[in-house]
Amino acid sequence: MTDQKENLTSSTIEELIKEKKYPELRNLFEEYPEIDIAEACDNIDDKTLLITLFRVVKSEFTAELFHCLNQDTQETIVKLMTDKDVTSLLDASKNDDIVDFLEDMPANLVSKILKNTPKEDREIINKLLNYKEGTAGSIMTTEFLEFSETLTVKETIDKIREIGKDAETIYTIFVKDEKRNFKGTVDLDDLIFAKQDETLKDIMNIDFVTVDVYTDQEKVAELVRRYDLNAIAVLNDDKRLIGIITVDDIVDVIQREANEDMSLQAGINPLKDSYSNTGVFKMAMKCFPWLAFLLIIDVFSSIVISNFQYSIAKVAVLSAFIPTIMDAGGNAGSQTSSVMVRSIALNEFKNKDFLKVLWKETRISLIVATFTGVIAWIWFMIEMYTGLVSYNGPEGAGHTGWDLFANRAGISLLVSVTLFLTILISKFFGFVLPWIAKLLKKDPAMMSGPLITSIVDVSSLLIYFGVFEIIQLIFHVPF
Amino acid sequence: MTDQKENLTSSTIEELIKEKKYPELRNLFEEYPEIDIAEACDNIDDKTLLITLFRVVKSEFTAELFHCLNQDTQETIVKLMTDKDVTSLLDASKNDDIVDFLEDMPANLVSKILKNTPKEDREIINKLLNYKEGTAGSIMTTEFLEFSETLTVKETIDKIREIGKDAETIYTIFVKDEKRNFKGTVDLDDLIFAKQDETLKDIMNIDFVTVDVYTDQEKVAELVRRYDLNAIAVLNDDKRLIGIITVDDIVDVIQREANEDMSLQAGINPLKDSYSNTGVFKMAMKCFPWLAFLLIIDVFSSIVISNFQYSIAKVAVLSAFIPTIMDAGGNAGSQTSSVMVRSIALNEFKNKDFLKVLWKETRISLIVATFTGVIAWIWFMIEMYTGLVSYNGPEGAGHTGWDLFANRAGISLLVSVTLFLTILISKFFGFVLPWIAKLLKKDPAMMSGPLITSIVDVSSLLIYFGVFEIIQLIFHVPF
Repeated sequence: MTDQKENLTSSTIEELIKEKKYPELRNLFEEYPEIDIAEACDNIDDKTLLITLFRVVKSEFTAELFHCLNQDTQETIVKLMTDKDVTSLLDASKNDDIVDFLEDMPANLVSKILKNTPKEDREIINKLLNYKEGTAGSIMTTEFLEFSETLTVKETIDKIREIGKDAETIYTIFVKDEKRNFKGTVDLDDLIFAKQDETLKDIMNIDFVTVDVYTDQEKVAELVRRYDLNAIAVLNDDKRLIGIITVDDIVDVIQREANEDMSLQAGINPLKDSYSNTGVFKMAMKCFPWLAFLLIIDVFSSIVISNFQYSIAKVAVLSAFIPTIMDAGGNAGSQTSSVMVRSIALNEFKNKDFLKVLWKETRISLIVATFTGVIAWIWFMIEMYTGLVSYNGPEGAGHTGWDLFANRAGISLLVSVTLFLTILISKFFGFVLPWIAKLLKKDPAMMSGPLITSIVDVSSLLIYFGVFEIIQLIFHVPF
Repeated sequence: MTDQKENLTSSTIEELIKEKKYPELRNLFEEYPEIDIAEACDNIDDKTLLITLFRVVKSEFTAELFHCLNQDTQETIVKLMTDKDVTSLLDASKNDDIVDFLEDMPANLVSKILKNTPKEDREIINKLLNYKEGTAGSIMTTEFLEFSETLTVKETIDKIREIGKDAETIYTIFVKDEKRNFKGTVDLDDLIFAKQDETLKDIMNIDFVTVDVYTDQEKVAELVRRYDLNAIAVLNDDKRLIGIITVDDIVDVIQREANEDMSLQAGINPLKDSYSNTGVFKMAMKCFPWLAFLLIIDVFSSIVISNFQYSIAKVAVLSAFIPTIMDAGGNAGSQTSSVMVRSIALNEFKNKDFLKVLWKETRISLIVATFTGVIAWIWFMIEMYTGLVSYNGPEGAGHTGWDLFANRAGISLLVSVTLFLTILISKFFGFVLPWIAKLLKKDPAMMSGPLITSIVDVSSLLIYFGVFEIIQLIFHVPF
């Protein structure tokens, strides 16, 4: 096969189970990756059929299958399973998979699961469950290979053959000294290429990076990506190895964090599941709170306009440019905040870089604001001279020639200067809000484009009408 | 070390080179990952010092270092290098690294490089360079291990020891039959656990996925992530293996694609490099074109308002709600487009899902629009009754009690109905524009929040004033 989804359908699986074609059912697990089988199983309506599947197929396959199923299917299956079924499922599962699954389950199911787990696993699972979501502790696995640095290459390979099957990865071997302190890593390819009688100490990498259980998973992902690691060590305060995180979990973290950042940046609460697996009402409730919140804070813009109704009534053309100014402010702010949010997420900045980045952003903003201001002035003049937007100077007199030009140039200048200032201010907010979030150890992605837009709207409208009134006061310009 | 950036500085390296402490310099490559050394080297002002480094350190280390340097440093160094330096650098480099580097270099440097490459490599590199950016062909490497299915496990491990050092990965072995057709993959751990006399045919995975050179890299990434692969096979039309893509390159692809999508969604052209490595003017030029473009298309909003100046002049309070309506439209559109863009990027939809997703989005939009509309009506009433926004009914008469309530309720209803329709329309645009891009095989992320905002602004203003005029016409409501 060269593509998922195109061969295996839920009805194929349903038939095999109903017609008791168990050998063919078992064969599926040779032919298809578990994730494809899982997707087909998710689409089977009668989930009791799956209980049969779990009983007739080897648990090493079904355990992996189970952890690929979506949350609803998992929940239904566990409810239908006997304690014996649950025990054999758990025996074949890795601890970190069990934890992932338990995290989203209702309490009564969690206790059903834990009841059927051997005591030593239960302790580990409970401990893992207690790590805060998003930390290294919450995504690490405790099934790793850790060997003493005095072991030879040959002894190590023999040991891997013996006990490696239960480990999450055998591609990275972790090395400790006699005091059980973590000393380094050996990649499986180093073992293959090394001489049989060399010790792990001879060949281990000592330029490793490690994290602790509290390290943010986004930071872990960035380290794994930066150093092209297969697995990274999680150490406790005594510098002993207590868990590892492998690259395949990191790939998921990167994908999920990017999704989350992108959702938040667009003013939508992140989905826990894929779009297809999220119900209509749930999806609506991810969108609605932000819309309502932003609607409510938009009252400040309304207050500003409400207070300048007199200006608008006098020079109606002012209102024609409100959308342009508001959009430009929102856009400029979103641009900067998206760059900041991403760069912060990728660990590009330390706190001490604040002033350096501020200075860089100031220069960027000045260039962008100047260019846009100039283009805007020209474009507004074109709009007025082509009649796209009608403005022929203050009413009462028929303005022509130089007089008309001066009036239009004046309005155009007012709007462009407002745009210039608006872009400066919104880029400043787009810069500073994610940084404040970072300093407060909140997720910078919360400082979304829409939020910045709403904040900037108020200031840009104040500038617009403020500049207008000031010009009128100082120059007694009639517009 | 537990964190990058905190130990090694550019001055350390500069000193070691200036004081000719070459053994210490070589030692750095044992102590630090190449990427950290590269970052320090990027910060050295006098790049001629680096030429010395490249001469005194083993080329297996410097080759990797070179490909971690940023583009400007690479360019400077190649310009300073003699042909002999270039040849030894290239000999130690993997073809895909050379291609990555050449892609961003000016033509004269490309020819300097190719001149110093052996003929057979030159052909491969030229071929790789010709694959379109963003395709599997452009990111694959041709240095893989492919063995015949009749080989035994023992023979395979011996062969890996012999020739594996030059391969991009030894963790996945690719298996062919006697006709050189690709047959399956064997993971290194399967080799370790298998009996020595089993053949590759006995133990190979046949539930593999493959791609071709034209497959989009985002799709490749999704397959690697979905199936937790270490490497994926790239086949030609004859089903023969011509390249592989490994998970560490995929991690970069995922990160880069997420960054690109996020930039585009915020209306900013994607950066080729990190924020820190992008100059002020370049950065400004990533932002400016979108701002200018959106400014220009905002003329349509100005035209609408300009044409309804009469309505605004009559009922000035109308303008107070313009920001709220525009923001809500933009926000609702951005929400939907961000979800669509991500789901399309993650290959969640096939073209035939269009109607299904449209139906789902319609229901989501109706819920969101109804909830928001109701909240809005209440909130606008509060705004007017608290005096945050002043509206006391049509001028001339002193409205009180029921009469005042009816007037305010009317305006509030007008704005909420507009909001309701605006949200429906913007969610529709947020849904349909990314889909159109997908169907036209363009990047859906181009359909950014800001673009949708500008489009929706026009329709929401038209609705706003349109509904107002219709109400006036039909009911002769004085407002």
